[in-house]
Amino acid sequence: MSAPVIAIDAMGGDFGPRSIVQASIACLLATPSLHLTLVGQASLLEELIARHSGVDRSRLLVVNATEIITMDDRPSLALRGKPDSSMRVALRLLADGKAQACVSAGNTGALMALSRFVLKTLPGIDRPAMVAAIPTQRGYCQLLDLGANVDCSAENLYQFAVMGSVAAEALGVARPKVALLNVGTEDIKGNQQVKLAASLLQAAPGLNYVGFVEGDGLYRGEADVVVCDGFVGNILLKSSEGLATMIGERIETLFRRNVLSRAVGALAMPLLKRLKADLAPARHNGASFLGLQGIVVKSHGSAGAQGFQSAIQRALIEIQENLPERLHGRLEELL
Amino acid sequence: MSAPVIAIDAMGGDFGPRSIVQASIACLLATPSLHLTLVGQASLLEELIARHSGVDRSRLLVVNATEIITMDDRPSLALRGKPDSSMRVALRLLADGKAQACVSAGNTGALMALSRFVLKTLPGIDRPAMVAAIPTQRGYCQLLDLGANVDCSAENLYQFAVMGSVAAEALGVARPKVALLNVGTEDIKGNQQVKLAASLLQAAPGLNYVGFVEGDGLYRGEADVVVCDGFVGNILLKSSEGLATMIGERIETLFRRNVLSRAVGALAMPLLKRLKADLAPARHNGASFLGLQGIVVKSHGSAGAQGFQSAIQRALIEIQENLPERLHGRLEELL
Repeated sequence: MSAPVIAIDAMGGDFGPRSIVQASIACLLATPSLHLTLVGQASLLEELIARHSGVDRSRLLVVNATEIITMDDRPSLALRGKPDSSMRVALRLLADGKAQACVSAGNTGALMALSRFVLKTLPGIDRPAMVAAIPTQRGYCQLLDLGANVDCSAENLYQFAVMGSVAAEALGVARPKVALLNVGTEDIKGNQQVKLAASLLQAAPGLNYVGFVEGDGLYRGEADVVVCDGFVGNILLKSSEGLATMIGERIETLFRRNVLSRAVGALAMPLLKRLKADLAPARHNGASFLGLQGIVVKSHGSAGAQGFQSAIQRALIEIQENLPERLHGRLEELL
Repeated sequence: MSAPVIAIDAMGGDFGPRSIVQASIACLLATPSLHLTLVGQASLLEELIARHSGVDRSRLLVVNATEIITMDDRPSLALRGKPDSSMRVALRLLADGKAQACVSAGNTGALMALSRFVLKTLPGIDRPAMVAAIPTQRGYCQLLDLGANVDCSAENLYQFAVMGSVAAEALGVARPKVALLNVGTEDIKGNQQVKLAASLLQAAPGLNYVGFVEGDGLYRGEADVVVCDGFVGNILLKSSEGLATMIGERIETLFRRNVLSRAVGALAMPLLKRLKADLAPARHNGASFLGLQGIVVKSHGSAGAQGFQSAIQRALIEIQENLPERLHGRLEELL
């Protein structure tokens, strides 16, 4: 395999290009074969790179793009109104074969719309899905869709299940257990789409479908891949982030209550801080778009340099595992 | 007001009649005006009551019922196959004016089906909803529906919003902020039902509708009433319970890791335990059915005596606040 090249949308996200440049340089140091192409306002990016010493510029290109898609821009504007946005130029590098993956921390809706337009979906896939690794009591599960598709047919859910299973295999899980998220585990439970998707999955050859899983079962680690529509997945992901944040703050408040609890807190806090990164994984590891003719990873808008670095790592794994081609092969068998 | 009487389905739930009898007697001690009618296998209930001393039997009746609805029984069986179930007999006491509320820890689907059949819904209400108080960074929010209705129209969501608002008022919130749960806060976000419900709510007189709230916004306390369909609400509630449990267990594991962390843990644990009750509120406080011609509170199937006691307290507040009549009046204005 030739050296992997990842195109980076350097202008997206709440934390700005400074963190993205920092994360990119850290990744180049950690992975000597990696090449990165930063896309954005070239003069600014060169200035930010110049602040770091020892950068191997033969592995770090800068490509200019004059426009920026903001977090508030509608997908339609991103598609039609900003032909030279950093996001679009980065995706074009991928479409033109000048990069094998694209990472952005920008506007999710715009990134999905542009990815579909520039890269196209894999044959047989109606809609790409967003997937992220969620921590469970037994490790991680791949949860999809996370918000790209608010209304889903049974066929969409079936396609998500197939794609999630292949993605979990690529991440090292043998015969991943695939489940549909539902309000109960009995056959009669759920809405029409979920019941119909269940019958499609029961009949799917070579898929390790284990049935329905409930919200608590997801966190008990009952499945390696959990499938739902983007409305439910987005609510689950964001409410989990909100709850984890609230618990963290309540613990801190508890430990600040009096002298004794402050003393205990000073001892306990370093341990509790270790938990924090685990509890908001999408924030830290990024979410992948599955079902496109190319690898696109979305870093959380407020993730900072550490999170962006994890998103680049995820893109690298997907390149090494040749994820779109594996998906394509599996989809040909199953759809 | 005459003394409140609450009918108790004494046979439902995973924890059995012993805990229910214990919780009932504790509530009688705490509230001297309260009367309870325990419904179930009379000989067993009498035996369990006899184990407690100082019980005011003038306020504790036992009514015999020969059948029990199990957690696995389908609602259709509860409706047609078990005419003398403890759940049904308890609801009949309510319909006959012999009690002002019913509390059960039994099978949720059966309780909803029997409640609708025995009590009927309020005029204008298509479907009752399940609501529970969820802890947030600013207090509590009433979340509904929690699973009674997996497919909801915009009109259903609108009715849930009105009922949730009245329930929050009854629980002491002035001009409760009402929000629709969605995948974003902009107008263009969401599925058709949610968008249409938003336009209905914007036009509703006297309702403090504040727009969309996301999963993390719910836990930040952005609204006092959060409305969603039962599929989404059930997944949110159960995944939150699952995540809170997982975090609790990870904290304990962290504190068991070595001698030093065990010492810190021994100091920190009493503080962290205080958090636990807060974090699974439906488990502890029960969920109310709204939209029926009567008060029905569902205690969590695995809540134990403490949880059942909280469910009885919630029923008592709803009796004192005359919740079904308040709902009826408000619905007449708005629907």
